[in-house]
Amino acid sequence: MTKSARRLGILLSGRGSNFWAIHESVQQGMLDAEIGCVISDKESAAGLALARNADYDALYLSPQGWDREAYDRRVVGELRNRNIALVCLAGFMRIITPYFVREFRHRILNIHPSLLPSFPGLDAQKKALDYGVKVTGCTVHFVDEGVDSGPIIVQAAVAVLMGDTVESLSARILQQEHILYSQAIGYALDGRCRVEGRRVLIANEAETDLSKT
Amino acid sequence: MTKSARRLGILLSGRGSNFWAIHESVQQGMLDAEIGCVISDKESAAGLALARNADYDALYLSPQGWDREAYDRRVVGELRNRNIALVCLAGFMRIITPYFVREFRHRILNIHPSLLPSFPGLDAQKKALDYGVKVTGCTVHFVDEGVDSGPIIVQAAVAVLMGDTVESLSARILQQEHILYSQAIGYALDGRCRVEGRRVLIANEAETDLSKT
Repeated sequence: MTKSARRLGILLSGRGSNFWAIHESVQQGMLDAEIGCVISDKESAAGLALARNADYDALYLSPQGWDREAYDRRVVGELRNRNIALVCLAGFMRIITPYFVREFRHRILNIHPSLLPSFPGLDAQKKALDYGVKVTGCTVHFVDEGVDSGPIIVQAAVAVLMGDTVESLSARILQQEHILYSQAIGYALDGRCRVEGRRVLIANEAETDLSKT
Repeated sequence: MTKSARRLGILLSGRGSNFWAIHESVQQGMLDAEIGCVISDKESAAGLALARNADYDALYLSPQGWDREAYDRRVVGELRNRNIALVCLAGFMRIITPYFVREFRHRILNIHPSLLPSFPGLDAQKKALDYGVKVTGCTVHFVDEGVDSGPIIVQAAVAVLMGDTVESLSARILQQEHILYSQAIGYALDGRCRVEGRRVLIANEAETDLSKT
């Protein structure tokens, strides 16, 4: 397998905590991958600065003056130029177009801070608290044409505790996100994910209780 | 506290496995409660036979010839005659009327085999498998006027495993249901549930991770 088959493109708009968790997983040898580029649609994104400081190939692509598909064509072009095998959305605040989804079918991952299909969209942790659930969590899924609707690769449960605020709950979910995203990226890079309709079958997955990891 | 303050009325339509789990929790001294009556809308329900064999006050109330609210008025009458403090739906296949909900506001519990708000209604386990979630579970909630929509008391997570069928997944969820329902009944009988809007605050709940129990 050539190295480029394990090259990640990371798209972010914010602080990039999931980008940094992926970076650390790679550094620590827990994830066999290479971060090929980091792309941001926000010039001020802290994650972009982090990427530059760590000497990654870090691009700011301004959305100003581009329609959605034209923007995505630029992004796809930059990803192709770098032989990116897998795209990881890490707090990327744009809904990507069907064009982008088609070009990287089942090669775009997103992470979402709830147990989908509960609480899709923005402010998932607040929605969970407001609904009064006792268990929430996070989800890594392939991106399809909908919002947080694609086939699910892995999920982890997180208990809501008495007295939880959006901040405290979000922090506990984020800890799980950082573990879960690298796990899912590994599955995808290893070619272990088989998508059958809505279901993602993971080859050789240990029959362990994910809710207890 | 008088004994009747801990008297349960159980409503079922089927095999009554959750009824029997409650029975066993009481027998084993793990749940301080008394099963005051078991009511079924199905004469052939295995749970009704179980209840009779165990010498419970077991009633078959035929729905034939009664409209929904008139039926519920009979049920409420039977519950009141027996000083029932808390009603537990245990596979009761009727949607109860707003009249019944009002008469026992926050004193009717239901158990549902998913992590609500995901997969309400019938065949929750099949819906979860078809959607492709990796974590599902069960929920005990207060019954309100909607279907599986009331304030949530407790939830437990259950992992979906590769190769799971509706049967194997349902069986693992059911194990959790049997633990969870008695726990929720205890909270309710102890007066530890404070309902605030959609949220149920549990007094003195250990700050433990329910997803890991």
